[in-house]
Amino acid sequence: MDYFYGPGRNHLFVPGPVNIPDQVIRAMNRNNEDYRSPAIPALTKTLLEDVKKIFKTTTGTPFLIPTTGTGAWESALTNTLSPGDRTISFLIGQFSLLWIDQQQRLGFNVDIVESEWGQGANLDILASKLAADTAHTIKAVCIVHNETATGVTNNLAKVRKILDDYRHPALFLVDGVSSICALDFRMDEWGIDVALTGSQKALSLPTGMGIVCASPKALEASKTAKSFRVFFDWNDYLKFYKLGNYWPYTPSIHLLYGLRAALDLIFEEGLDNVIARHNRLATGTRLAVEAWGLKNCTQKEEWFSDTVTAIVVPPYMDSSEIVRRGWKRYNLSLGLGLNKVAGKVFRIGHLGNLNELQLLGCLAGVEMVLKDVGYPIKLGSGVGAASAYFQNNTPLIASRI
Amino acid sequence: MDYFYGPGRNHLFVPGPVNIPDQVIRAMNRNNEDYRSPAIPALTKTLLEDVKKIFKTTTGTPFLIPTTGTGAWESALTNTLSPGDRTISFLIGQFSLLWIDQQQRLGFNVDIVESEWGQGANLDILASKLAADTAHTIKAVCIVHNETATGVTNNLAKVRKILDDYRHPALFLVDGVSSICALDFRMDEWGIDVALTGSQKALSLPTGMGIVCASPKALEASKTAKSFRVFFDWNDYLKFYKLGNYWPYTPSIHLLYGLRAALDLIFEEGLDNVIARHNRLATGTRLAVEAWGLKNCTQKEEWFSDTVTAIVVPPYMDSSEIVRRGWKRYNLSLGLGLNKVAGKVFRIGHLGNLNELQLLGCLAGVEMVLKDVGYPIKLGSGVGAASAYFQNNTPLIASRI
Amino acid sequence: MDYFYGPGRNHLFVPGPVNIPDQVIRAMNRNNEDYRSPAIPALTKTLLEDVKKIFKTTTGTPFLIPTTGTGAWESALTNTLSPGDRTISFLIGQFSLLWIDQQQRLGFNVDIVESEWGQGANLDILASKLAADTAHTIKAVCIVHNETATGVTNNLAKVRKILDDYRHPALFLVDGVSSICALDFRMDEWGIDVALTGSQKALSLPTGMGIVCASPKALEASKTAKSFRVFFDWNDYLKFYKLGNYWPYTPSIHLLYGLRAALDLIFEEGLDNVIARHNRLATGTRLAVEAWGLKNCTQKEEWFSDTVTAIVVPPYMDSSEIVRRGWKRYNLSLGLGLNKVAGKVFRIGHLGNLNELQLLGCLAGVEMVLKDVGYPIKLGSGVGAASAYFQNNTPLIASRI
Amino acid sequence: MDYFYGPGRNHLFVPGPVNIPDQVIRAMNRNNEDYRSPAIPALTKTLLEDVKKIFKTTTGTPFLIPTTGTGAWESALTNTLSPGDRTISFLIGQFSLLWIDQQQRLGFNVDIVESEWGQGANLDILASKLAADTAHTIKAVCIVHNETATGVTNNLAKVRKILDDYRHPALFLVDGVSSICALDFRMDEWGIDVALTGSQKALSLPTGMGIVCASPKALEASKTAKSFRVFFDWNDYLKFYKLGNYWPYTPSIHLLYGLRAALDLIFEEGLDNVIARHNRLATGTRLAVEAWGLKNCTQKEEWFSDTVTAIVVPPYMDSSEIVRRGWKRYNLSLGLGLNKVAGKVFRIGHLGNLNELQLLGCLAGVEMVLKDVGYPIKLGSGVGAASAYFQNNTPLIASRI
Repeated sequence: MDYFYGPGRNHLFVPGPVNIPDQVIRAMNRNNEDYRSPAIPALTKTLLEDVKKIFKTTTGTPFLIPTTGTGAWESALTNTLSPGDRTISFLIGQFSLLWIDQQQRLGFNVDIVESEWGQGANLDILASKLAADTAHTIKAVCIVHNETATGVTNNLAKVRKILDDYRHPALFLVDGVSSICALDFRMDEWGIDVALTGSQKALSLPTGMGIVCASPKALEASKTAKSFRVFFDWNDYLKFYKLGNYWPYTPSIHLLYGLRAALDLIFEEGLDNVIARHNRLATGTRLAVEAWGLKNCTQKEEWFSDTVTAIVVPPYMDSSEIVRRGWKRYNLSLGLGLNKVAGKVFRIGHLGNLNELQLLGCLAGVEMVLKDVGYPIKLGSGVGAASAYFQNNTPLIASRI
Repeated sequence: MDYFYGPGRNHLFVPGPVNIPDQVIRAMNRNNEDYRSPAIPALTKTLLEDVKKIFKTTTGTPFLIPTTGTGAWESALTNTLSPGDRTISFLIGQFSLLWIDQQQRLGFNVDIVESEWGQGANLDILASKLAADTAHTIKAVCIVHNETATGVTNNLAKVRKILDDYRHPALFLVDGVSSICALDFRMDEWGIDVALTGSQKALSLPTGMGIVCASPKALEASKTAKSFRVFFDWNDYLKFYKLGNYWPYTPSIHLLYGLRAALDLIFEEGLDNVIARHNRLATGTRLAVEAWGLKNCTQKEEWFSDTVTAIVVPPYMDSSEIVRRGWKRYNLSLGLGLNKVAGKVFRIGHLGNLNELQLLGCLAGVEMVLKDVGYPIKLGSGVGAASAYFQNNTPLIASRI
Repeated sequence: MDYFYGPGRNHLFVPGPVNIPDQVIRAMNRNNEDYRSPAIPALTKTLLEDVKKIFKTTTGTPFLIPTTGTGAWESALTNTLSPGDRTISFLIGQFSLLWIDQQQRLGFNVDIVESEWGQGANLDILASKLAADTAHTIKAVCIVHNETATGVTNNLAKVRKILDDYRHPALFLVDGVSSICALDFRMDEWGIDVALTGSQKALSLPTGMGIVCASPKALEASKTAKSFRVFFDWNDYLKFYKLGNYWPYTPSIHLLYGLRAALDLIFEEGLDNVIARHNRLATGTRLAVEAWGLKNCTQKEEWFSDTVTAIVVPPYMDSSEIVRRGWKRYNLSLGLGLNKVAGKVFRIGHLGNLNELQLLGCLAGVEMVLKDVGYPIKLGSGVGAASAYFQNNTPLIASRI
Repeated sequence: MDYFYGPGRNHLFVPGPVNIPDQVIRAMNRNNEDYRSPAIPALTKTLLEDVKKIFKTTTGTPFLIPTTGTGAWESALTNTLSPGDRTISFLIGQFSLLWIDQQQRLGFNVDIVESEWGQGANLDILASKLAADTAHTIKAVCIVHNETATGVTNNLAKVRKILDDYRHPALFLVDGVSSICALDFRMDEWGIDVALTGSQKALSLPTGMGIVCASPKALEASKTAKSFRVFFDWNDYLKFYKLGNYWPYTPSIHLLYGLRAALDLIFEEGLDNVIARHNRLATGTRLAVEAWGLKNCTQKEEWFSDTVTAIVVPPYMDSSEIVRRGWKRYNLSLGLGLNKVAGKVFRIGHLGNLNELQLLGCLAGVEMVLKDVGYPIKLGSGVGAASAYFQNNTPLIASRI
């Protein structure tokens, strides 16, 4: 029942799906249940209330959809927009590319703002487009908070500021798949209309739940949006919310109990501590990359991602070989370079329920792999650099003080 | 972490989600994995090959979509039809109603053939409509194999015969959610173009995987179908099938390993033995209902369902109270009556990985509940009737002979 | 990884090991831990405190020993007695026989009081022996509270009364393996000096933890007892209790977490409710036996056991065939007749985390098996008789009212 | 249900209990079973056959006892010796001390051969004692293969040679608790009479199974050995072996399935590969210790242990603080110094189902902890030294080539 067994644990450092905490695995280790008994609505009620906290919203309405991030995107778009609607979307890497592709295939008129892969969204162009759009033909600004392919984090506060500066009524739709629960994210403060994530990212659950949160303005838009939708229709959920049994169709009991456990862990640690931990682990990773003499794919510090680091290999090397080698020799799972950066970068995911020593094990593995494939590395250099940072900055575990 | 604890096991007899075998629970008790490593494609390959066996198809192409039955419906429709297309659909209960609602909201022109709830699809009307449709405006015949709300099984072989009799090229789309892996189902022999089921039904998995199987004709239709779709687009899957890594977006690792274990169990028992077991358990249930002096909601024997029995309560009783009482006093989960039959029927699901003694425990519970709510029942009567059948017909467990 | 697969759940009705609640299975689904970290002592402290409640003692000292019931016996004896010491012990079935065998092999001088199998301990003989023993040569009265082989429960309050009547200082050692947590048990009130149970019985855990509780008088006796012992020596535990890290050698982390979960469930239900539930399930079983026209192995009502019922088959039948048949055809696990009653009785265990519908499924299975082997039974008769009792006496589930 | 939560995984590097592989956790995630059904004997039969392979014996008889290492010791001694018997035992650390204590308390006449902690057993003294013992008063030579407290491995082949040199008939009893399945161990070749281990060590299971293997000579000795024993009596097992149902009392079903999975993993990797992996991980650890400028507690290379490394801290430091700090800040579990070396050494366990990157994470953690407590360490130095070794010596994972 296992494919390609190796001794010891697998070291899972792709930027999703990520390591599931034991507590969550335990919570999901169960039989099915009748989702129409009083138990599941009682559980769901707590989830809908608590999940808002990870979006930092009090006014949003969350939907826990049995789907993936791709489905969550589709839910965000089809509930708020009509075919032919003009959207602005930023092409900065593989996942923004895929979202744009989806927008186009769903019939929207996508105004693409492209940047070099490794750069963030070009917000100057956004500003000029909004400035020019006095007729308000732009119905939505769609942006990926954290581009998982390149490790680039966009500045959402600035997007909001630009929208406000031009008093533009466009909806603000955000893919927070590899950011929410890991990066600073403030749905209400930043006036985000739809935010979404997937269970297998920073929430550290199995894949299968798309979590979408809609602002009152987005809900209002859903009343007139003409995109065909049924499975993804928020309205079907809202109808059952009112009835108090919450589910228009069968949810995954397992992911509901898993989410309960995941949220409990996050709140026990403290969401802000979780975010600080992501920053700490990411900083350590970046210091290691520097120590190795390699380049971060992310071109400026302002875009550095705290959930994933894409590392550029020298031109004479094939980054895919690094990933293959890590898996074959050290039971280490790293992220491949995708599309334009295939063969050029490999990625270390450092999001979810993770700690310093797990990451240092990964960094030690990367060092050996780099040496394996002929890169002139001093073994221990990256680990030492990251350790120095961690040793100065890691707090005592709160429960153990 | 549990809501409304009661001693002992919950007796889960809703017609889905159903009991998960321990072997499957174990197989899913694991961490996430990188779905781009060689392990997941290797696993997926076996699944795609083996899942065809439960559809009894060699020519079909299966898709394992991270969604529910509702999403599987949407996948079947949007990949094969275009807005405005005429479909014939049979309204015989809550689930056929919901599928029709979906067809309408996705923009199809649905020609509804309605029957009284408790009856099967009116195939005479189908015949006359096909006969009249010499212009072939009907693009698809959509039928629910087993209507879960009323316990009615439609005759798919006959549908095929009628289509053939009139040499009608309409696509034959079948909701097999509460039938596949439990009832006799022959995709190839019956010329079904799209068949689908959900993981939480007879496969006895958690909710979250919609399993859709498309005939070559359906795949051909998908090339010209104009319904917007991205998440549900078969083409994205086919592209990755060719690449050999199978997944256009993140699958649930857990459901893949769970499906592997579920299929292994089904093949160990033998699919035809599984189907025979469902018939045996259903027959026992029907004999119990008869012994209780109650009426099966299903009006004729030809429509009797082997996966769920809907039982009509006398007019002076409220069937919802039976369900509530079962849960509150005996830790028994029964199915509610839905919509038109709300308050009038309650349902016993007898599908999935289940055996005689589990069902007899349920029947004993139903008897006590019936007495609780004032129905004049002889305790033991239904159990005795079912037992008499089981005692004559249950084979020895193959592995233990 | 499974031996002799059959569809559906196994119906486990041997009188131990019993069904483990899902909550306990979940709690034990974990990695090992360092038992010298602060976590395990913190956990252990709660366990030692709470486990006293199931013995109904405030003055006793509990030991959680990584062993089975047989080891717990050995711990009780070797810590309190010296080779050559005279004990009184009652031979009434297979488990009392085995304990007596152990006492003899450990070098004690065992004064055996034998009764017919199916009868309780002969306390009149105890009285006369104590009366005669003015020299106090009897060092311990050893009694099995509930003889699992015959389903006989002895009257411990009466034993204490007799000891008191004769002001006899003998230690009062009680095997509570198939009673504690299921039957009324009052260590302090009944002046029991050592009481013990095993994790796989009414506590509904896996096998592997012997739970022994010693009165102050027993602890005092352990200071002078000369039996060789190391693994089972209470003194090694007491030394580590004082140090606050509790364990003289490695405990099973898994059973500790499992015990925590098991106790939580028992306290959530309420220990007295748990005991009442055992009486209810046992009464239903006995009514079924009566309805079947079969005889309870237990000869008088005062000895009826609420945790196991041994059922005598007619002389022309072999009870072992019933057990074999149940397992082979219905996935039902019943208890064999042991030793003197081998072939003559089969046993239904109804202890641990169990509810009415589980038991009724078992009773329905027993009925079919009886018919299988040629006993003239009216199917449904026993289930009906038990159901009638349950329907009148089962309370609503407290958490669901 | 968790005590002192910290984010991410616990890094478990005590020399037992060790990390349990996911496959084993899964195998144990189950309900109880009737151990008298045909399933458990069928399973047990495979275990008794296969467990001999890890002892490298074909003539030995294994016993799987529901106990710990301490109980396994007691089983080895009481089945082969009689009170008053003279044994030779080597005192070289805390675990050999405890075994000697047990021997004394069980009434044997222990001839102690003491060495400084950090040294191996003094075999010259053994030789002289055997030489002198022409009357063969020495009944057993008892030796701990690997002293877990100091990381010292004794040379068993040499012990056998000395026994042979003097044609001495003493039994050769070996504690292999922290060696078997990790170090080179050859029961038959080295003429070992009783060898034993515990489930929570290199087998990577939970605690609770003592595995004892007896040579024909040991079995013969058990026929006349006069030590009292019941729970630990081999004879009770042998009786049930003959009956083919194997168990004199209830075994832990969970540990049996767990052992099955553990053995499967070991055989999949290859026992000799497992042993080589232990040597590789240990060598890396020792290179790190050297790079840190610290001293191995083990005084000579010939005694270096491949399962645990005890590291001496400078006199101005308290090694306990290192262990405390690791747990409190980095979720790292290290072994304390025990008894004579308390405060002076800390220990890294590197046994069981473990790989290079897990160990490197631990070493990185140790480095930070050392810096935390004021030791002048160059961060990354030890990791680099170990990595250099691993990068040269780690084979590709066999299943992934």
